[in-house]
Amino acid sequence: MFTELSNNKSALVVDLQKVKNNYQVAKSFLNPSTICGSVVKANAYGLGFLEISQTLFETGCKHFFVAYLSEAIELRVLLPNVTIYTLMPINEKEFEECFVNNITPVLNDLSDIKVYNKFAMQKDKKLPFILHIDTGMTRLGLTDKQFYSFCENKEWHSHLEITYIMSHLSRSDEPQSDMNTFQLEKFKNLCKFLPDVKMSLANSSGICLGKDYHFDMVRPGCMLYGINPTLYINKSPVETVATLYGKVLQVRTLTEDQPVSYGFTYQAKKGDKIATVACGYADGYHRIMSNNTYCYFKGYQLPIIGIITMDMLMVDVNSLPEKILNEFNFVELLGDNVKVETLATNAKTIGYEILTSLGNRFNRIYV
Amino acid sequence: MFTELSNNKSALVVDLQKVKNNYQVAKSFLNPSTICGSVVKANAYGLGFLEISQTLFETGCKHFFVAYLSEAIELRVLLPNVTIYTLMPINEKEFEECFVNNITPVLNDLSDIKVYNKFAMQKDKKLPFILHIDTGMTRLGLTDKQFYSFCENKEWHSHLEITYIMSHLSRSDEPQSDMNTFQLEKFKNLCKFLPDVKMSLANSSGICLGKDYHFDMVRPGCMLYGINPTLYINKSPVETVATLYGKVLQVRTLTEDQPVSYGFTYQAKKGDKIATVACGYADGYHRIMSNNTYCYFKGYQLPIIGIITMDMLMVDVNSLPEKILNEFNFVELLGDNVKVETLATNAKTIGYEILTSLGNRFNRIYV
Repeated sequence: MFTELSNNKSALVVDLQKVKNNYQVAKSFLNPSTICGSVVKANAYGLGFLEISQTLFETGCKHFFVAYLSEAIELRVLLPNVTIYTLMPINEKEFEECFVNNITPVLNDLSDIKVYNKFAMQKDKKLPFILHIDTGMTRLGLTDKQFYSFCENKEWHSHLEITYIMSHLSRSDEPQSDMNTFQLEKFKNLCKFLPDVKMSLANSSGICLGKDYHFDMVRPGCMLYGINPTLYINKSPVETVATLYGKVLQVRTLTEDQPVSYGFTYQAKKGDKIATVACGYADGYHRIMSNNTYCYFKGYQLPIIGIITMDMLMVDVNSLPEKILNEFNFVELLGDNVKVETLATNAKTIGYEILTSLGNRFNRIYV
Repeated sequence: MFTELSNNKSALVVDLQKVKNNYQVAKSFLNPSTICGSVVKANAYGLGFLEISQTLFETGCKHFFVAYLSEAIELRVLLPNVTIYTLMPINEKEFEECFVNNITPVLNDLSDIKVYNKFAMQKDKKLPFILHIDTGMTRLGLTDKQFYSFCENKEWHSHLEITYIMSHLSRSDEPQSDMNTFQLEKFKNLCKFLPDVKMSLANSSGICLGKDYHFDMVRPGCMLYGINPTLYINKSPVETVATLYGKVLQVRTLTEDQPVSYGFTYQAKKGDKIATVACGYADGYHRIMSNNTYCYFKGYQLPIIGIITMDMLMVDVNSLPEKILNEFNFVELLGDNVKVETLATNAKTIGYEILTSLGNRFNRIYV
């Protein structure tokens, strides 16, 4: 289908059915009473948050987590009847917009809670929020001491309704780490001070740690988008969602030895066949993978050679038989044959950054 | 000014006056008869191509290079009376759009040239293009052999007007490299076959190699955006254009020793003051810089500690005196005090990728 595109761009194909399947995989880990929310921040990890949120909604998801209020407001237009949470702190001046759009903020700070309470008093309403406590991430959320103050000073949240207490795991991708049990116990102990409030702890990897970590709501992100949340076992429980097809712009056969691309990192030989593909670091294909990764076409792994440039990269296609070269119009840069985890290793990062880096110059196709 | 923003986002401030100054710096290298074009592809290296193109136009630039036809068409709406070139190959189906919008394609391939010629015949017009020949980049452009065929077979371009011959330098950032003189001589020798056609070879670093490389038009890109095109000498001829101010979301003082962020890469001590800033790898702040770079506030270099997360990063602010901490609302993540070249080194890449990675969740402010 993407081979029929009328322009010379690469194509990012997002398989929404796979997103649905992956959401069901997340749910399959849970007791029926545990709610399965979805984290769709950062444009649904780069894959298109409106398309994916709509899909997740159709699959039954009713709780959506975004980072910024601006995302929440955009999502509210699409989905008027779901609960939308903002994970990043809300500025004092933003509470009105939050209220008008029926957004539930996650509050990370005592001062924000006091400001929100004052805002609720002015509205003469009981306003909902999620209380975020820090159990070991040292990023956002109330410290133990702040949490105890919070519990003691009911007047600070007299007009607020705590819909959930949440915390965030810092090493859930390492099931053998003591940090998981440490955070779990700390979370449970702190939550005892607010016994009637629902609890949420687990991200994707946390879901895979087992039911002790699930509580009332889980918040999967990466696994919905095809990133393996259990890297410590080879087999991923989820399916690939994003496939990036790089448009082949040109194939040349060298008539003499010559270097490829900037600098002098790859010396090609007379007779070498080299393809130029429309994808570069301005498309989020990390330059650090230069001379250190591959793409794929019809059973062949093809090395990326030379420095990856802003808009293009070069591929060694010597291994392709003539017959296959004639059909050679797109290479798979990311997908079932070039796993996001492979690119992550080659780019010295994690799959999340591979996805969130994907640029906006591709034809984006949702199937 | 950005401190008055009503939301909790970081701010990317682009100084358009500096873009004007940098364009004048580029021109100052040239003879008056050499045209100074501008490369504004990839959203003007991430900084906003409509704003920057308008600015460059006001400074006197009349020749603009983009990568894709879609960019060219967008730019045409803004600037009806300039020459706009597409650097990436144009698909057969795109020539009509190219024609209607008065875009001059750079053609890289004999087959594209023949298709374009046929298209021109159908229109019964003489249509302009830039002929791209490869002198050592091995990316796009005619090989020697193809170029000779082109010159011999005038019927292949009977309805085309070659406005420029261009090539692209592969090691212009290494002035001592033999590759520069090799490409220069090759370019001059090949161009002798089309003696009446104007010539263009130099990008930003090529401009700094001297007037031998300038010919009829130069095509600066990086230097317009504040990237030093002469990294081999410490002093940059151009000024910083982009400043990224990271919003400080929270400052916490630890009541016990604890690790910071995911994994266990940074152990903070009781009493440490740690700030959480609204910028992460989904904003193009590369995760590979975790524990290996710094930001800046009022004379203080502040280390980034722990793993950089998708939306946030943590900063060690122990060195800040109490008085300065009280004013601590934004940190400089990129700018005059945290050079793009510094981040590039820390991220194991080049300044170009630092800029093109900058995300779209910041408040973007043009001054």
